[in-house]
Amino acid sequence: MQRFKTIDTSITALGSLEVLSQVEVTQLKEAGENGLYELLRRCVLAILNTGSHSDNAKTILEAYPDFRIDIIQQDRGIRLKLFNAPGDAFVDGQMIRSTREMVFTALRDIVYAQSESEKPRIDLNNGPDITDYVFHFLRNAKMMCPGEDPRIVVCWGGHSIGESEYKYTKDVGHELGLRGLDICTGCGPGAMKGPMKGATISHAKQRIRSGRYIGLTEPGIIAAEPPNPIVNELAILPDIEKRLEAFVRLGHGIVIFPGGVGTAEELLYVLGILLHPMNKDIPFPLVLTGPQESEPYFRQLHEFIAKTLGFEAQQKYKIIIDDSELAARELSEGMEHVKEYRKKTNDAFHFNWQLTIDEDYQRPFQPTHENMAKLRLHKDAPVHELAANLRRAFSGIVSGNVKEAGICAIEEHGPFEIHGDKEIMDPFDELLTAFVQQHRMKLPGSDYEPCYRVVT
Amino acid sequence: MQRFKTIDTSITALGSLEVLSQVEVTQLKEAGENGLYELLRRCVLAILNTGSHSDNAKTILEAYPDFRIDIIQQDRGIRLKLFNAPGDAFVDGQMIRSTREMVFTALRDIVYAQSESEKPRIDLNNGPDITDYVFHFLRNAKMMCPGEDPRIVVCWGGHSIGESEYKYTKDVGHELGLRGLDICTGCGPGAMKGPMKGATISHAKQRIRSGRYIGLTEPGIIAAEPPNPIVNELAILPDIEKRLEAFVRLGHGIVIFPGGVGTAEELLYVLGILLHPMNKDIPFPLVLTGPQESEPYFRQLHEFIAKTLGFEAQQKYKIIIDDSELAARELSEGMEHVKEYRKKTNDAFHFNWQLTIDEDYQRPFQPTHENMAKLRLHKDAPVHELAANLRRAFSGIVSGNVKEAGICAIEEHGPFEIHGDKEIMDPFDELLTAFVQQHRMKLPGSDYEPCYRVVT
Amino acid sequence: MQRFKTIDTSITALGSLEVLSQVEVTQLKEAGENGLYELLRRCVLAILNTGSHSDNAKTILEAYPDFRIDIIQQDRGIRLKLFNAPGDAFVDGQMIRSTREMVFTALRDIVYAQSESEKPRIDLNNGPDITDYVFHFLRNAKMMCPGEDPRIVVCWGGHSIGESEYKYTKDVGHELGLRGLDICTGCGPGAMKGPMKGATISHAKQRIRSGRYIGLTEPGIIAAEPPNPIVNELAILPDIEKRLEAFVRLGHGIVIFPGGVGTAEELLYVLGILLHPMNKDIPFPLVLTGPQESEPYFRQLHEFIAKTLGFEAQQKYKIIIDDSELAARELSEGMEHVKEYRKKTNDAFHFNWQLTIDEDYQRPFQPTHENMAKLRLHKDAPVHELAANLRRAFSGIVSGNVKEAGICAIEEHGPFEIHGDKEIMDPFDELLTAFVQQHRMKLPGSDYEPCYRVVT
Amino acid sequence: MQRFKTIDTSITALGSLEVLSQVEVTQLKEAGENGLYELLRRCVLAILNTGSHSDNAKTILEAYPDFRIDIIQQDRGIRLKLFNAPGDAFVDGQMIRSTREMVFTALRDIVYAQSESEKPRIDLNNGPDITDYVFHFLRNAKMMCPGEDPRIVVCWGGHSIGESEYKYTKDVGHELGLRGLDICTGCGPGAMKGPMKGATISHAKQRIRSGRYIGLTEPGIIAAEPPNPIVNELAILPDIEKRLEAFVRLGHGIVIFPGGVGTAEELLYVLGILLHPMNKDIPFPLVLTGPQESEPYFRQLHEFIAKTLGFEAQQKYKIIIDDSELAARELSEGMEHVKEYRKKTNDAFHFNWQLTIDEDYQRPFQPTHENMAKLRLHKDAPVHELAANLRRAFSGIVSGNVKEAGICAIEEHGPFEIHGDKEIMDPFDELLTAFVQQHRMKLPGSDYEPCYRVVT
Repeated sequence: MQRFKTIDTSITALGSLEVLSQVEVTQLKEAGENGLYELLRRCVLAILNTGSHSDNAKTILEAYPDFRIDIIQQDRGIRLKLFNAPGDAFVDGQMIRSTREMVFTALRDIVYAQSESEKPRIDLNNGPDITDYVFHFLRNAKMMCPGEDPRIVVCWGGHSIGESEYKYTKDVGHELGLRGLDICTGCGPGAMKGPMKGATISHAKQRIRSGRYIGLTEPGIIAAEPPNPIVNELAILPDIEKRLEAFVRLGHGIVIFPGGVGTAEELLYVLGILLHPMNKDIPFPLVLTGPQESEPYFRQLHEFIAKTLGFEAQQKYKIIIDDSELAARELSEGMEHVKEYRKKTNDAFHFNWQLTIDEDYQRPFQPTHENMAKLRLHKDAPVHELAANLRRAFSGIVSGNVKEAGICAIEEHGPFEIHGDKEIMDPFDELLTAFVQQHRMKLPGSDYEPCYRVVT
Repeated sequence: MQRFKTIDTSITALGSLEVLSQVEVTQLKEAGENGLYELLRRCVLAILNTGSHSDNAKTILEAYPDFRIDIIQQDRGIRLKLFNAPGDAFVDGQMIRSTREMVFTALRDIVYAQSESEKPRIDLNNGPDITDYVFHFLRNAKMMCPGEDPRIVVCWGGHSIGESEYKYTKDVGHELGLRGLDICTGCGPGAMKGPMKGATISHAKQRIRSGRYIGLTEPGIIAAEPPNPIVNELAILPDIEKRLEAFVRLGHGIVIFPGGVGTAEELLYVLGILLHPMNKDIPFPLVLTGPQESEPYFRQLHEFIAKTLGFEAQQKYKIIIDDSELAARELSEGMEHVKEYRKKTNDAFHFNWQLTIDEDYQRPFQPTHENMAKLRLHKDAPVHELAANLRRAFSGIVSGNVKEAGICAIEEHGPFEIHGDKEIMDPFDELLTAFVQQHRMKLPGSDYEPCYRVVT
Repeated sequence: MQRFKTIDTSITALGSLEVLSQVEVTQLKEAGENGLYELLRRCVLAILNTGSHSDNAKTILEAYPDFRIDIIQQDRGIRLKLFNAPGDAFVDGQMIRSTREMVFTALRDIVYAQSESEKPRIDLNNGPDITDYVFHFLRNAKMMCPGEDPRIVVCWGGHSIGESEYKYTKDVGHELGLRGLDICTGCGPGAMKGPMKGATISHAKQRIRSGRYIGLTEPGIIAAEPPNPIVNELAILPDIEKRLEAFVRLGHGIVIFPGGVGTAEELLYVLGILLHPMNKDIPFPLVLTGPQESEPYFRQLHEFIAKTLGFEAQQKYKIIIDDSELAARELSEGMEHVKEYRKKTNDAFHFNWQLTIDEDYQRPFQPTHENMAKLRLHKDAPVHELAANLRRAFSGIVSGNVKEAGICAIEEHGPFEIHGDKEIMDPFDELLTAFVQQHRMKLPGSDYEPCYRVVT
Repeated sequence: MQRFKTIDTSITALGSLEVLSQVEVTQLKEAGENGLYELLRRCVLAILNTGSHSDNAKTILEAYPDFRIDIIQQDRGIRLKLFNAPGDAFVDGQMIRSTREMVFTALRDIVYAQSESEKPRIDLNNGPDITDYVFHFLRNAKMMCPGEDPRIVVCWGGHSIGESEYKYTKDVGHELGLRGLDICTGCGPGAMKGPMKGATISHAKQRIRSGRYIGLTEPGIIAAEPPNPIVNELAILPDIEKRLEAFVRLGHGIVIFPGGVGTAEELLYVLGILLHPMNKDIPFPLVLTGPQESEPYFRQLHEFIAKTLGFEAQQKYKIIIDDSELAARELSEGMEHVKEYRKKTNDAFHFNWQLTIDEDYQRPFQPTHENMAKLRLHKDAPVHELAANLRRAFSGIVSGNVKEAGICAIEEHGPFEIHGDKEIMDPFDELLTAFVQQHRMKLPGSDYEPCYRVVT
């Protein structure tokens, strides 16, 4: 096992947790030392590990087995001592400022999630309560900026994409930034990093100093897809479903780049919501775009949608091939409609309260072998339910590919079995097979061993 | 009954409560419409009523009997509709910005106090929990500024003082501001307003744009002593004792100007704390100052302290007559000691965690006839307990003088009876009689009818 | 002769002259040590002397005979060493920041005036060149803020006014500030200070942190009317006429408070301009206002205008008695017309290029005995010329009253003689006599010895 | 001839020239329409042409033959109408903000250069006057920030470099930015753009919002090397020599990347200065760095220095191969020495007054055939003079390669003849030949036809 340069250091709070009561410091210390310690350690390690080019959470975690955090209590506040921290997070012995901010973001979010979930007033099986929870989570992360015009573009896409696809995501980010739009992604490399880099440059060109580069992640994915240091606002939501809800309620439009199973999961999630009858009048710009070479990918996805969710679902998005300027303009114009609509309906600009999200989409799905086997992928189910279950199936495969828990489960029990009607399962299998052939499952260089088996 | 010019208006949140969840908006609406409505109405009316020159809460409240607030719920947030609001709060039909901020401050604090008190984890009979509560209250009011050097000077003194005393408080505020110090007072006219006015001018001279003019009040006093509009940070703490604790933990030093019973109450409070053995090494600049004409007042107070709490208590403060520059310099130099001490002991600059405050000082005291009669003002009690009880006695008299509940109780049951040893009660009676003669009990123009009777 | 507390100090540039070339530093040093030294010394002494309550320039200058400035040259820039500087300008040994800024303002303006006047391209007898000069002077003083809405209100009025008049000027300033307007005055005490103080407080109430308190003065008047330290932008124009032009081109409206001869001079100046046929469509709000007790003063002035300049001139202003709110609202509404007009005519907001000012008003008038005797105050002159000459007559009397040169000339040659038609000279004499009786000639406490004699 | 998409537009001043007098507007209009029009047109066209990938000034200028500027005069200020402007400078019809700023920068600098050169007080053949001129030029461009610590790193290197060299310049810029350093280059692509891009990203990581990306160019080079839009401070100095002086007086250290003749010119310039006996104690960090593949290039340069200027000259710089972190650390540490030295000697941080620059280096050199032929490249000349003449020889070749005037002269008269001793001319010729072989003379894709001939 390769060993890397490490550093011991001690840091005080920056950006979050700067003013704490003595009780809170004690709670943080206790939380961080007991049940939540392992979670905190994983997240912080991921954040410090921005230089890594592996997407295997296990690998990353194993690369720094001695990494350790001590939480120190002072009258003045809280201090973290880090031992054997990855050296890439430091410049001449000083932690990079954005990284230091993100470390305290992790502590903040983990403890917040914990303390909120203990509150009796919240029923996390109840839809409106979950939405309320997501709102409070994001507000606690200071992501709500009242009075700002809609301009947050969510960018989804693979962390494992080719060089020209990556360059294209930078181009689109550049064009979005030229139009004054901000970027929100799921953190990590590839399509999550490119748009932020592009927008950083174009915001500089437009003299925009307040550009937002928002990263929304969750504990299971952060180790495999650590936030890149351009991210200037980070939230680590407690699970996939809350993270997805945060994307669609915080963002004002979505761009989907080529990706793999995770991207398919995200597309199905947003389509499922936009197909909900209550949401049919709500403007929500949704663009699928990539360079020339990704045209086959999008064609395939487009056909998969046609075969499973049907024609109507196809009307919810626009596919734009190799025209970053057009893609950005589409979003930019879409923002105007979003703004008008929210004004007309007296809705907030900073949180999309009006979007109806079915509880099916909100409740966490544990991708165990049992749960995966129980998924009902039937053609005769309501399109809505089908979309939700397809989303779950993809979600399970993501877990088996890159998440620590998933990888372990597969190592122990073999691949997931996924059952369904032939009319659904055939296109499903084709899509996945194509992803494997296009190396969209894992970062290049690592061989892919499928973590699922389709049963019709 | 005189009627004043009133205005109907509708305002959205400013400075506080700008980003609310739908549940919070509903809660605010319900809270504001049910149990807390009357409290909210009183506080908002006081805030809108900054032009008034009466210190009788009943009078103020009765002057606008039709004043009414509607809380409107929107997806976007909350909106207040005000009917028959005092015209002085408006300029050409627009509410003055500071006033609008303070109206939402009132809503924020009232609802916060309510929701905190309902939390099971907080035992408001327990000292550390009360301190924690005060800390959270102030943090929620965004009054904690980490990283700032100690520079908050608490100014106490009468709301009913003469012209030359008032001018002197402006001079001291001016000299404090010249030295870069900020002002914190209890809101209201007289010695609570003068220092802020003086510092506003001298901050302008020193090109300090971030000067803080902090007002700490409580629902029982706000109607009689409404915040003047220079206040740019306001908190309405739930009771006298939490407000006093907020003063000594947030402030870094205290100036006491001539005043009446309320001022005596405050002096006894801070002396009682500084006399606590645990606090004897903690630097805490405390200056009593006034113009030449107030020398007899301070002599009298000084003697009263000698006769009741003794020589040691006199060593905790410095009396400076007619030298605003010296008074300010004393505080300015004191700040250096505070800073050094906190650095050395690794304490926060923004909250004085180290000060030990006895639970006797923290628990709310209800100045009913019964409680007032039960006070034990005995010479043989520990100096500590004596100071606490004297503080309560003064507190009761303040209530009987200017607070609505106190005034009503006196109207119904006659004056409070206060019992104690002759050695305590004689100086006590002398001091109060002198206050009456010096018109320090009420704003000039109103006759004073004593609300207490000393029994030895 | 009374001696005051003095301080020796050394200061580096603040706000102006922070980045100088080596040649410039040498020039400044030479200029400051040779011909311009005495002028610089006078101006700086006046600026340091803000605590003084005398308006006799000679008295002030004589109070600090040992005050001396050394200009030190460094690679890094320029440094001033001050010896025997008035102690009031310091707080605990540190010069007040606004004062330090103004000291370098004085150096900046004196040297700028000198170097500009030496440029061959400028003909200071030519009207457009003078206007251009005033523009450049103000731009060099960083007073041009492009893109800001019109909101500069010039406040004129006596430096020697009664307590209630002073309070009224504060009220008007307060009301102007509540409406977001900025204040520009001639520096000095009385009506030049009150509005700034009032606006400082009301800007704080409206949370306006960028309030402008502009002082325009000239070397002859600065010693008698030193800038108060609220002034946050100062320019010392080279003579009265350029200062007056700066007022009307920089300001967007004018308020005239009760005053003496200087105020009369200013009123005649602006009336003369507004009466110019070229200016008749240009909106220019002009309000004369004071408390109840100043009604007779304004009546007298109003009658004097009627008798000398006639009915038309009276239509150029509005007199408002004892209603600070109405006065402020008048200005506030006037600003809207100014803004609309400038937009329509595509004129700048920051400088009133369109106002035609006759060269008669632009050329400096030296109030020697000879020039004063030559003034032609004839009823049959064009109203325009008459106004210009009346302005000069008042200007000479101001000089004889408070300016060092004027006082010396009167001491040597006796009072000025002013000739004119009886129809003009009678109201002129009445007005001046009334000013004497109302103690409007000098600060109270000093006896007034007339410096002029009317000859018909 | 290829034609490109063009746009007609009209823009008002941004960043510069926002407040102008009427006379200035007239002057600008006249200057821009008469003698200076062609110069302005060239510069603006270069600025608008940031998307181009040609480095042939003639090509660029010929691509937009119809491009035209009208200067419109308004009371309010100045407005530019652009006809047939390159479409790449616009986003959805709006000019990119940085581009708009730079267009007015060009107008500002061209007119400033013109008006300064007409001042009688300046003798542009006199060394100190030239330095003073450069200082004023940069101050007028608002590049002097008093009070800032030394942190401007000048990056020199080729506009025509390979992909891996370009990537390396980004890495170095990234490492410099991580250490809080700012970037100053000569504008243009390649090594002038890479460091700015890298620093933009790392400044974002370090949450530095005030990063400076300074471009210093001159009219002859701007068309071939247009400022990239990250540049947020631009100055167009009137000639090469003033631009070079601006680099060494404004910058606090220099990094030289691989380049061609221009880079050799710059290296000789700075070596000649640092070798001056008066400058031997002045700290001036100078690092030559590139990726592994550029080691031969630097070896060659290093040998050329040894053979011509000798061993001592080699001690003035450090060569660092393929270690961007070390290069940045070298600069970062060097800044500390610069700061200490300037503090000790009381020199400004914002302009290096103390550096002695010989008039030989300051006087403009016109690379005509005649002047080139007259250069004395003799071994027995003082090392100082030799360096100056070598610098001129390289300068002439740059002109013949990429500047319009040079290209035309070569087209007409054939290559320059350069005479000198064999011991100098042989290494000189070797170096140039190597540059040709390495394609360091021109952007790849264009064949290189030498514009010089060595004669020994």
